[in-house]
Amino acid sequence: MSWENNIRKVVPYVPGEQPVRKDIIKLNTNENPYPPAPGVEKLLQDFDWDALRLYPDTKATVLVEELAARYQIKPSNIFVGVGSDDVLAMAFLTFFNSEKPILFPDITYSFYDVWADLYRIPYKLCPLDEEFKMVAEDYKQENGGIIFPNPNAPTGVLETVEMVEEIVKANPDVVVIVDEAYIDFGGVSCLPLIEKYENLLVVQTFSKSRSMAGMRIGFAMGNEKLIGYLNDTKFSFNSYTMNMTSQVLGAEAVRDNDYFMECNAKVMATRERTKVRLKELGFTFPDSKTNFIFAKHESRSGAEIFEALKERNIYIRHWNKPRIADYLRISIGTDEQMDKLIEALKEILAQ
Amino acid sequence: MSWENNIRKVVPYVPGEQPVRKDIIKLNTNENPYPPAPGVEKLLQDFDWDALRLYPDTKATVLVEELAARYQIKPSNIFVGVGSDDVLAMAFLTFFNSEKPILFPDITYSFYDVWADLYRIPYKLCPLDEEFKMVAEDYKQENGGIIFPNPNAPTGVLETVEMVEEIVKANPDVVVIVDEAYIDFGGVSCLPLIEKYENLLVVQTFSKSRSMAGMRIGFAMGNEKLIGYLNDTKFSFNSYTMNMTSQVLGAEAVRDNDYFMECNAKVMATRERTKVRLKELGFTFPDSKTNFIFAKHESRSGAEIFEALKERNIYIRHWNKPRIADYLRISIGTDEQMDKLIEALKEILAQ
Repeated sequence: MSWENNIRKVVPYVPGEQPVRKDIIKLNTNENPYPPAPGVEKLLQDFDWDALRLYPDTKATVLVEELAARYQIKPSNIFVGVGSDDVLAMAFLTFFNSEKPILFPDITYSFYDVWADLYRIPYKLCPLDEEFKMVAEDYKQENGGIIFPNPNAPTGVLETVEMVEEIVKANPDVVVIVDEAYIDFGGVSCLPLIEKYENLLVVQTFSKSRSMAGMRIGFAMGNEKLIGYLNDTKFSFNSYTMNMTSQVLGAEAVRDNDYFMECNAKVMATRERTKVRLKELGFTFPDSKTNFIFAKHESRSGAEIFEALKERNIYIRHWNKPRIADYLRISIGTDEQMDKLIEALKEILAQ
Repeated sequence: MSWENNIRKVVPYVPGEQPVRKDIIKLNTNENPYPPAPGVEKLLQDFDWDALRLYPDTKATVLVEELAARYQIKPSNIFVGVGSDDVLAMAFLTFFNSEKPILFPDITYSFYDVWADLYRIPYKLCPLDEEFKMVAEDYKQENGGIIFPNPNAPTGVLETVEMVEEIVKANPDVVVIVDEAYIDFGGVSCLPLIEKYENLLVVQTFSKSRSMAGMRIGFAMGNEKLIGYLNDTKFSFNSYTMNMTSQVLGAEAVRDNDYFMECNAKVMATRERTKVRLKELGFTFPDSKTNFIFAKHESRSGAEIFEALKERNIYIRHWNKPRIADYLRISIGTDEQMDKLIEALKEILAQ
């Protein structure tokens, strides 16, 4: 017997590398190539540092109200957390509390099974079809809750709002969480459905489309009752989760909608341009509505291309997992970065 | 049957009020009356806002290394989190995983039973004695883990390092967590014991002595194995918990040790001065080694004084709980703020 017997042993998630070197092209963690809204810089410079001695607003009012105005819902329909990972982990803990398995796709965000293991939640994987699409029927079996990203990651595939509604409607007895981390890059959000279905929680993030991965801001939108339960869990865990800088800078990022739309349009234009060039080089991929492309080559292995790009200081993401071992997830950077990627790929494929 | 049946229902912690008005004297949440280190302001102004588009360093290297240098331990002995509440909640989840009850004092930080309930951890309260001291023998019964603050909150009472060692030594089969949130105001830390006992975890915070409650930074120090398990849980929960600004500004606060020592000395001097005056007004209190005083009046009730001070825009903390309903927890502010408090108390007691 030793103190180590009582430890909760878990297999942690392994995040993408965050290399310190500045000379690399970083297309491995779906960050935005453009800086946060210009007002963010000014707010940082003018920040009331003396106020940092005080606890932050536990309700993150300034941020919640700005989000409510933007999405035309009430502040009581919004829950904010330290990145969407925090929001999702709280939602797992709060809503997935049944003995029945929760359902999610077999190829999906790799944190879902980690949280399920952490909280001892049983789960069952629903295989995507050959084109990486979800099969709605799979989500009509008995379950303790449902979660999926839309668009899905790492595939980039967008499901229709009708498909999401079909699943939500078929499961009134459990909470359905739709993780819309990538929705702002051309997808249609299922947010309007929260008025109709009180079991639907829609989660979004500032890390991709709002260029603020470094500030850790995520949020969930749903029925007041759902949000109330999430807040109860949050206040049981840590009342003061979001620090002052995140609250103030996050609100500013929401306020500047023109800049937000402009950056997203640039990312989408670069993505479409990159799709054409990857096809020319012999890559195939499901059509992406995100800020990344999930591509495989007609003759070269995923691992080979991944390593060859890394040698050339270009970082992308590769998983040694069933069904996707030959795929590469390539984040969309600036046009210039993508040009360098295409040049490097040409070199590698010519060898 | 409805989705609400599967909700994890919890009774959340209720934090002290954070009034928005600027004209109040806020002595209710043990914040530091002095601003963060001056270097923090400069770093905010010069912050590389463009970098906010990237994910933060998951290991918070800059902060961990600065703490390691300050406390003369290795980076692998340190775990950092989003406030000590985050660190403590992770520690509960990781280390208190037995069927046997964990032990903590009956009068203590009110988050402990909230976390135990949240994670379904059985617990047993060990009553403090009449002078609010812990009874070491109580912590030698069968248990699944032990946690206590030293100095204790809200009593302010400091236990000796010998007493802490006696408890740690008697419990080699479980993890003992010592929550040293208030240790920098005149207490002696049990940190050196981590070299001798691998089951000891020492938790501290930037929210009190480092004047950075608004940034949410806490940390734990212990054996490499303990820290490794904590990191596994953290990486199962949220890889990128601490945002960039907290990492950078936190490191600067640690770097400026002179300012840290100077502010703590000022708080302690004000505390000692306040003790004398409270005694003159008929208050009694256990001797405090923290940045607050836990006092009761010889003839007036706690609730009465609490309300009367609030009417005068002076906020302190009061709990309607067994054994402590007549006590008031008064944070130490500046000399000027404490003068106003004493004046207000004189007025109230004269009525």
